[in-house]
Amino acid sequence: MSEATTNHDVVKIITPEGGTAELPVIRAEMGPPTFDIKSLHKQTGYFTYDSGFAATGACKSDITFIDGGKGILLYRGYPIEQLAESSNFMEITYLLMNGELPNAQEYEDFNHLITRHTMVHEKIRSFMEGFQYDAHPMAMMMSVIGSFSAFYHDGMNVNNPEDRRMAAIRLIAKMPTVAAAVYKNYVGQPFMYPQNKLGFSERLLHMMYGVPAEPYEISPVAAKALDLLFILHADHEQNASTSTVRLVGSTGANPFACISAGIASLWGPAHGGANE
Amino acid sequence: MSEATTNHDVVKIITPEGGTAELPVIRAEMGPPTFDIKSLHKQTGYFTYDSGFAATGACKSDITFIDGGKGILLYRGYPIEQLAESSNFMEITYLLMNGELPNAQEYEDFNHLITRHTMVHEKIRSFMEGFQYDAHPMAMMMSVIGSFSAFYHDGMNVNNPEDRRMAAIRLIAKMPTVAAAVYKNYVGQPFMYPQNKLGFSERLLHMMYGVPAEPYEISPVAAKALDLLFILHADHEQNASTSTVRLVGSTGANPFACISAGIASLWGPAHGGANE
Amino acid sequence: MSEATTNHDVVKIITPEGGTAELPVIRAEMGPPTFDIKSLHKQTGYFTYDSGFAATGACKSDITFIDGGKGILLYRGYPIEQLAESSNFMEITYLLMNGELPNAQEYEDFNHLITRHTMVHEKIRSFMEGFQYDAHPMAMMMSVIGSFSAFYHDGMNVNNPEDRRMAAIRLIAKMPTVAAAVYKNYVGQPFMYPQNKLGFSERLLHMMYGVPAEPYEISPVAAKALDLLFILHADHEQNASTSTVRLVGSTGANPFACISAGIASLWGPAHGGANE
Amino acid sequence: MSEATTNHDVVKIITPEGGTAELPVIRAEMGPPTFDIKSLHKQTGYFTYDSGFAATGACKSDITFIDGGKGILLYRGYPIEQLAESSNFMEITYLLMNGELPNAQEYEDFNHLITRHTMVHEKIRSFMEGFQYDAHPMAMMMSVIGSFSAFYHDGMNVNNPEDRRMAAIRLIAKMPTVAAAVYKNYVGQPFMYPQNKLGFSERLLHMMYGVPAEPYEISPVAAKALDLLFILHADHEQNASTSTVRLVGSTGANPFACISAGIASLWGPAHGGANE
Amino acid sequence: MSEATTNHDVVKIITPEGGTAELPVIRAEMGPPTFDIKSLHKQTGYFTYDSGFAATGACKSDITFIDGGKGILLYRGYPIEQLAESSNFMEITYLLMNGELPNAQEYEDFNHLITRHTMVHEKIRSFMEGFQYDAHPMAMMMSVIGSFSAFYHDGMNVNNPEDRRMAAIRLIAKMPTVAAAVYKNYVGQPFMYPQNKLGFSERLLHMMYGVPAEPYEISPVAAKALDLLFILHADHEQNASTSTVRLVGSTGANPFACISAGIASLWGPAHGGANE
Amino acid sequence: MSEATTNHDVVKIITPEGGTAELPVIRAEMGPPTFDIKSLHKQTGYFTYDSGFAATGACKSDITFIDGGKGILLYRGYPIEQLAESSNFMEITYLLMNGELPNAQEYEDFNHLITRHTMVHEKIRSFMEGFQYDAHPMAMMMSVIGSFSAFYHDGMNVNNPEDRRMAAIRLIAKMPTVAAAVYKNYVGQPFMYPQNKLGFSERLLHMMYGVPAEPYEISPVAAKALDLLFILHADHEQNASTSTVRLVGSTGANPFACISAGIASLWGPAHGGANE
Repeated sequence: MSEATTNHDVVKIITPEGGTAELPVIRAEMGPPTFDIKSLHKQTGYFTYDSGFAATGACKSDITFIDGGKGILLYRGYPIEQLAESSNFMEITYLLMNGELPNAQEYEDFNHLITRHTMVHEKIRSFMEGFQYDAHPMAMMMSVIGSFSAFYHDGMNVNNPEDRRMAAIRLIAKMPTVAAAVYKNYVGQPFMYPQNKLGFSERLLHMMYGVPAEPYEISPVAAKALDLLFILHADHEQNASTSTVRLVGSTGANPFACISAGIASLWGPAHGGANE
Repeated sequence: MSEATTNHDVVKIITPEGGTAELPVIRAEMGPPTFDIKSLHKQTGYFTYDSGFAATGACKSDITFIDGGKGILLYRGYPIEQLAESSNFMEITYLLMNGELPNAQEYEDFNHLITRHTMVHEKIRSFMEGFQYDAHPMAMMMSVIGSFSAFYHDGMNVNNPEDRRMAAIRLIAKMPTVAAAVYKNYVGQPFMYPQNKLGFSERLLHMMYGVPAEPYEISPVAAKALDLLFILHADHEQNASTSTVRLVGSTGANPFACISAGIASLWGPAHGGANE
Repeated sequence: MSEATTNHDVVKIITPEGGTAELPVIRAEMGPPTFDIKSLHKQTGYFTYDSGFAATGACKSDITFIDGGKGILLYRGYPIEQLAESSNFMEITYLLMNGELPNAQEYEDFNHLITRHTMVHEKIRSFMEGFQYDAHPMAMMMSVIGSFSAFYHDGMNVNNPEDRRMAAIRLIAKMPTVAAAVYKNYVGQPFMYPQNKLGFSERLLHMMYGVPAEPYEISPVAAKALDLLFILHADHEQNASTSTVRLVGSTGANPFACISAGIASLWGPAHGGANE
Repeated sequence: MSEATTNHDVVKIITPEGGTAELPVIRAEMGPPTFDIKSLHKQTGYFTYDSGFAATGACKSDITFIDGGKGILLYRGYPIEQLAESSNFMEITYLLMNGELPNAQEYEDFNHLITRHTMVHEKIRSFMEGFQYDAHPMAMMMSVIGSFSAFYHDGMNVNNPEDRRMAAIRLIAKMPTVAAAVYKNYVGQPFMYPQNKLGFSERLLHMMYGVPAEPYEISPVAAKALDLLFILHADHEQNASTSTVRLVGSTGANPFACISAGIASLWGPAHGGANE
Repeated sequence: MSEATTNHDVVKIITPEGGTAELPVIRAEMGPPTFDIKSLHKQTGYFTYDSGFAATGACKSDITFIDGGKGILLYRGYPIEQLAESSNFMEITYLLMNGELPNAQEYEDFNHLITRHTMVHEKIRSFMEGFQYDAHPMAMMMSVIGSFSAFYHDGMNVNNPEDRRMAAIRLIAKMPTVAAAVYKNYVGQPFMYPQNKLGFSERLLHMMYGVPAEPYEISPVAAKALDLLFILHADHEQNASTSTVRLVGSTGANPFACISAGIASLWGPAHGGANE
Repeated sequence: MSEATTNHDVVKIITPEGGTAELPVIRAEMGPPTFDIKSLHKQTGYFTYDSGFAATGACKSDITFIDGGKGILLYRGYPIEQLAESSNFMEITYLLMNGELPNAQEYEDFNHLITRHTMVHEKIRSFMEGFQYDAHPMAMMMSVIGSFSAFYHDGMNVNNPEDRRMAAIRLIAKMPTVAAAVYKNYVGQPFMYPQNKLGFSERLLHMMYGVPAEPYEISPVAAKALDLLFILHADHEQNASTSTVRLVGSTGANPFACISAGIASLWGPAHGGANE
């Protein structure tokens, strides 16, 4: 519901006992209208009941608009088809964080900033070596991201926007490194350090499939396909994992704990089978 | 809302455009009435908007009834005051799981079953030794509980009630052992194995405050106080951590992943400051 | 073939080419006669061919006499039935090593000597913690016994009878400790140190099934059954594992390497399925 | 005894008691004749006695023919001098496994297959770091090869020829890596990953003598000499270590356990002093 | 030089060039007189030269008086013979720290305080497990005591008398635990936790010679002898190790670093052979 | 006091009691004169008293001459300004050890010798990984250098000049490697192996600031500045850390223990704040 606007029309409620309420309608530029039930209980004594939160909106996203039925997906107002064609995942990430696509200088600065954080604390790396050879990848991801808070203290004050931004930068930069390390543990190969001269998706491919025994030739097709995949999954408004992150975040937990809980949510088979 | 019953009275909805809907009312034996909004969008094109899920019920609890305003807390219909006076936490646990308080034989069997699972896999114990000396207790809890799924595979088929029950038994039995190990890491003392001859709260006290250098005298007052604390916190229907567990669980994630995510949720300061 | 005696009768060999040889017969007090083929090649140019060594004796055992057909098993001349009834495994061990059953003082001294060596070097114990949680028990046994040579150097001069005796004492004393540690790794429980006040089989039971969480009651029936099992398996002259130990030993390898190789031989399913 | 052929002439046996037996002669294309004593006991009641198995053949080798006296060594019928001059160790390995020398394409495929397996599971590598700084190289070899069975399960069904072949490929590819790691532990230098672009012997030299502090120049003379050494030791029919491997293998133990036991046998000083 | 007093008599210095200086004499109640050369250079342009500091006093000890020639050793004025006969090492420690022997209540309080600190941080204990099996005991002591500063931060402000006192208490309480752990590493036995119910020397004996395999009977004669040994070595004014501690301490280094350096000094053979 | 010479003039001492002594004057080519007080006590019964050793010389340095007042610093007679301008730190090191600057061949040989020892035993490297992520750098240095004696035994016979020289070579070559490893632990980055093709200071910069994620460009200005810093700190005759090393060394302790104690001394704030 990007650029949400509110007008003064209302939805009327009449209870069996004859109580009534008037609830303000919220209309977004795009997508179906909603009415705000905040004052429902006060006005009528009733709560709504919605076992799967399927009829209840909980956030007004400035970032993403989805209309599954019509096949529309907009990031910051840009149609996904256009973004997929003209931009790479680093640009999309910038777009989602800042509201606009980067110009050449902004892109270079952003990319440089990300590469300052691609490595993980060496103790985190050796901590990963402590997992059993057959540790479940999702359990490793949860544990490792959850342990970030012990090392990157700047992400701890969740009321400071700059701290939150720094935590986001770290997560974007380090998540591929952690994911690749988890994969390497799974296949029994040595960890490969990130190569900053590579692009985001090339870097991940190199960390996953490279080995010290011989040079790794990155396939441009595979790299492009992976980049597209990341673009398409970059934001989906309010799915189970995002809801988990938001729910945990609402308690004031640090960003790494929130993301860690979101990973748990990705574990489940009902959240799309590709995550394992 | 224990013993929920449904009658046929309805709540009427009238939209600004003149659309209408009739939504069935759900009345519980105790507590305020609700109406089910599942068909709202189909009937009217509208969703509700509820930014904190404060006006939306999401579960019908057969276990707990809370009326914060009137100061009522019932577990399975028993007033908390009565339970706190006459029962210990093991009995309450049995009550929450089975719907009724145990008789003498059931209690003994249940207690015996729990003590069969108080120890954690030795590799989990040594995994905990891999954490830094100042690792955050909540991060350790998350990691350790999340790693359970690698060792206790019987909890993985979430559609099998017996598997779920076994996962619950393990969590009840092992959680104090893990919590004490986390605390011991924090204070730099050696892990103390659980002593099965002790009661639930005595066992936890011994694991937390006992040391190999001298015998530990368990204070009956402290043990009783701790047991009461556990009884009072045994179930609170739908708070942030429970919601997280349920949300993650709804994706089909294994029980240990769900509880691990719930622990992340407990990390936040808005969830009651005592959890750290 | 205890108490082997040699007389001067011979077996005659006639080759297709008409070559002949006379090979001395070796008769034991019990069991079938053999003739010594050492000079066969020199006398005739021929070797024998025996794909499974099934028709070739390779050792003259002073220790054990077996006649599988007649169901006879003697240790040092004592029928196994008599030993099983009146002696325990420690006494049998003494008998096998020294040729005679111990008197009361000898038994006490021998038992004391064994208990001086029931513990393993602490670095061996922690080395065992480095194995994966699902390491194969036989692989662990091989590795651990093989690594003994790094710690117990007195067993290295295989030409010194006292060194060999000391290596035997260590193996008798430490093998149950290692076996129990391997088992504990397999079931995920903590290592239990040997208790010297217990008898040989009781000690093993305690190390295998005891846990720090509660006292372990040793069943006298189980202990007696285990002791019998050890007595019956104490020596079997020349089976695959013994042959392996002897073959490796013939190269002058240290006793721990030989036993380690013998354990590899026990791994195979054709060596009796009970060993895993 | 490549291409062994059997004719119907027999060796006659006459016992002191006048019993007789006729035992079939087995003649190989090359080497001394043998007669098969399988039925000796049944025909005469006698066993042969051969304390060091020196007069008893136990295998008909299709691979190697040795006549120490005449200084003849053939692999698959090729004289060793010819092989040493024209082939490298990878080709010899192919010859021993497949019966013929590889053509250009077969060589390339075989070499590629081997390089797919030069690295060892990362957990095996870190397991090797757990050894003491002065661990005995042979003990490390035994332990590490023995632990392969936990990681390379395809070698476990010893009745499946493809599994056995795969185990052989792994052993050929990984043995130099393990040997070099053992050497590096001994001299206190870091492990060097195998370089697949190098040949077999160059790769081993690089892993043994290379260090991260500076480039390692491989001496072509040293590489050639090492390759020759491997060719000359590639197979020796039936020595102590081979006998051990065969004996352990006859129990159905997995290939890695068998080789591990064979390494124990190499430990002994009577097996050629160069092995330590 | 307990209770040092200064009078106004002086030592006169005449240089070859005819320069003169008058240096104040310092006379102690016991022991030879000294004169203070602080102003020597200013008065004459000369320094003294004393290659082993053998003729130069550097501290005025309020604690110990030694006259090696006359065989006199006083702690706080008490003759060592009297202390050795009537007091134990804990009392002597109190005496050295506080200037007077403790009364019954003071003794009990002091002993209780010490027992609160007999255990070492569990990470220090596991750090000790990281040493090689043949690590040099003095090197381990140096490393471990030096690492204390990372765990016991209260000893870091060397200008705060209470911090210094607390560091002393920790060192007195933990040194036997560390020493015993070092010894246990050396002999390959498991660490034994301190038993607070035992006296100082009994506790050390139990930690050094006790094993989990059987109860350890403490010999009262050995305990008494060890206690005497500690009393006799409790303070010796200004030997090489004390000088090292003082010299390092004069730079403001934390107490654990100073003691660690002093241990290095004890390593040398010229400091009495018994220290290894 | 390079090139110290002794003449027969004396300093006269007159005690208050009228006792006298004549003490020989020692004059150096440069710097203030001293008189030797070795026989003071024997002649007069007096000791000198010098609480901070400020008026007492303890060594005759053949290496360095310092006159702080006049701003003169000579190494082996060469003014520091000249050395700083024309030589690098490796040449200065050679100068300090051998008394003369190296010619081209000597320089090359010395540099080659140093590069043979830039790596540390791999077990020392992994030992460093066992430290906590926030271990104090000085504590790590102390521990690691102290543990050298377990690995480099040739430095143990302190009476053998060649052993002492070898220990010096090792310390010069390995100290930067250890220091960089300590720094890397502190910032949470992976250890970088020394690059022998670089000069001494470039090598250290590369080990400290290089990362595997991207190439590290060494700044020639930074390298030159660091080299100058090392030249200026190469020797300062008799400061607190040198005195500690000498004091500990006087007990016959091995060189690594002595240097380790000297590091403790550098820890203190009174020894120049830049050392942490």
